[in-house]
Amino acid sequence: MRVLSGIQPSGTLHIGNYLGAIRQYLALQHDNDAFYFVADYHALTSVRDAQTLRTNVFNVLVDLLALGLDPEKACVFVQSDVPETVELSWLLTTVTPMSWLEKCVSYKDKVAQGLSADHGLFAYPILQAADILIYDADLVPVGQDQKQHLEITRDVAERFNQTYRAEVFKLPQPRILPTVAVIPGTDGRKMSKSYANTIDLFEEPASILKKVKRMVTDSKTVEEPKDPDTCSLMALYRHFADPDALAEAEAKYRAGGIGYGEMKQRLAQAIIDHLAPARERRAEWVAHPERVEEFRRRGAERARKVARIVLDRAREAVGMRRVGPPA
Amino acid sequence: MRVLSGIQPSGTLHIGNYLGAIRQYLALQHDNDAFYFVADYHALTSVRDAQTLRTNVFNVLVDLLALGLDPEKACVFVQSDVPETVELSWLLTTVTPMSWLEKCVSYKDKVAQGLSADHGLFAYPILQAADILIYDADLVPVGQDQKQHLEITRDVAERFNQTYRAEVFKLPQPRILPTVAVIPGTDGRKMSKSYANTIDLFEEPASILKKVKRMVTDSKTVEEPKDPDTCSLMALYRHFADPDALAEAEAKYRAGGIGYGEMKQRLAQAIIDHLAPARERRAEWVAHPERVEEFRRRGAERARKVARIVLDRAREAVGMRRVGPPA
Repeated sequence: MRVLSGIQPSGTLHIGNYLGAIRQYLALQHDNDAFYFVADYHALTSVRDAQTLRTNVFNVLVDLLALGLDPEKACVFVQSDVPETVELSWLLTTVTPMSWLEKCVSYKDKVAQGLSADHGLFAYPILQAADILIYDADLVPVGQDQKQHLEITRDVAERFNQTYRAEVFKLPQPRILPTVAVIPGTDGRKMSKSYANTIDLFEEPASILKKVKRMVTDSKTVEEPKDPDTCSLMALYRHFADPDALAEAEAKYRAGGIGYGEMKQRLAQAIIDHLAPARERRAEWVAHPERVEEFRRRGAERARKVARIVLDRAREAVGMRRVGPPA
Repeated sequence: MRVLSGIQPSGTLHIGNYLGAIRQYLALQHDNDAFYFVADYHALTSVRDAQTLRTNVFNVLVDLLALGLDPEKACVFVQSDVPETVELSWLLTTVTPMSWLEKCVSYKDKVAQGLSADHGLFAYPILQAADILIYDADLVPVGQDQKQHLEITRDVAERFNQTYRAEVFKLPQPRILPTVAVIPGTDGRKMSKSYANTIDLFEEPASILKKVKRMVTDSKTVEEPKDPDTCSLMALYRHFADPDALAEAEAKYRAGGIGYGEMKQRLAQAIIDHLAPARERRAEWVAHPERVEEFRRRGAERARKVARIVLDRAREAVGMRRVGPPA
């Protein structure tokens, strides 16, 4: 099965991104033909500075590699290295009723969040449809909030196939990601860049410790019993501790006898230890940008080969030939 | 000065298209660096059949060549042979406020005319902006109805340059085409495909004669004086007759002594004679499709060279590099 997913290079990855999505994408690479891309065309709707975009794109690539992406298995590429996608999006756009885009809630949501009401945001679901259809993807892991866009992708694919009486596109299936329990940020609310309460994945250990120490808890004393199921520290610790350490901490919470100060030390250390191998791998990649570049180039080549085949099928269906030697 | 214009391959060219626009485009090739393209990406908003699109595109190319386009001078190409345009349109779309597109009257007009309300129609002005900006065009000859789109092109170009603090795009100037007196169709209304009252440019002479004979006139007798300024036959004859023949016919109209039957014969003959050299040249090109193909290939190559330079400027400005060897 070909599985496809895109990651927006709109900033630094934090622990919430990792636990909620990236970790699950990485798990899918083992039993599938995984295509993962850095969605830089999409990022232009919010990133408006060249150096920032370049840095963000590089960071997503090295983050993925550091987190365990297998460069010999998964095909990882940068969206704008395959401009065929945008060409396909135009072919799709001409058979997409305005009403389908008007009913998308994400445009309104993003404008409400303060992004400027540009046409790129509005047209986003069509480029997303092209991203998916151009790779003949079977499975697209999405969060609940992206389900509507995947339905549009399927509708657009069907409308195109019907309009041109040809089986040009494969209809992808959504794989709704299991809802992960909310990952709390340092202030106890959901971890999110917009709340400025994140712990970044590759922050320096000292900085992780400092942020964890600032995390909000109630004011129970060391001796008082505590409920591990309602504590933010535990909500994070659960993902990073090994099972024995977790069981021990939970027991101590219920019995009383461990304070938040000590728990914060344990949590920070667990995060730091858990990410240590990834941090090392990341440093290795960052020290060799030419290897990252080579990895990017190979991904683009592999992705583009597939994309061209599908795009040519679509061009043929509408009556566009390629002239002269292939560009 | 680089002058740029696009022609939609949405059907057969008729006399109204020729007198209203094509003839004026052709005149501009002599003193300018002319770039003319067959707008097939745009045509997808109305043409939904592969064979029709292929035929229409071929016809526009041979029509232009037949009508006097100088293949050694003007750069003529098919829009979809330069997919860079669509890529640029995505970069532009991310800095284009929705409100600019919402105020465009052409979308509403076309939907009112019966085209389906698809996103391609709505997003049309952005692709048009890319068409113009990607060739660093100085001058864009447009009819009054396209003036609004050219203003949007300038606004988008300025917004992009400002957002990325770079002089990426040249601001094109509109060249509003002189309003040609309405070209009447066979029923006396403006010649237009939607009224089914057209005389096609390269119709068979017998068919032209037949259509002209059916043209609507009043019921004045041969002897009665007639006003040459209000007669549909004269409105067409004016464009095809040589000055002496025209003066003679006008005098006879005013004095009385020429009937509509005879005038129709003269008009049909004038049209047929005027277009005879073009008809011959056209037959020559049609007999050698491989020459048309070669002409198309050369145009695409020349256009693409310019387009890539401008697109790379835009990619550089937003922070997108090209990886690996140029595709």
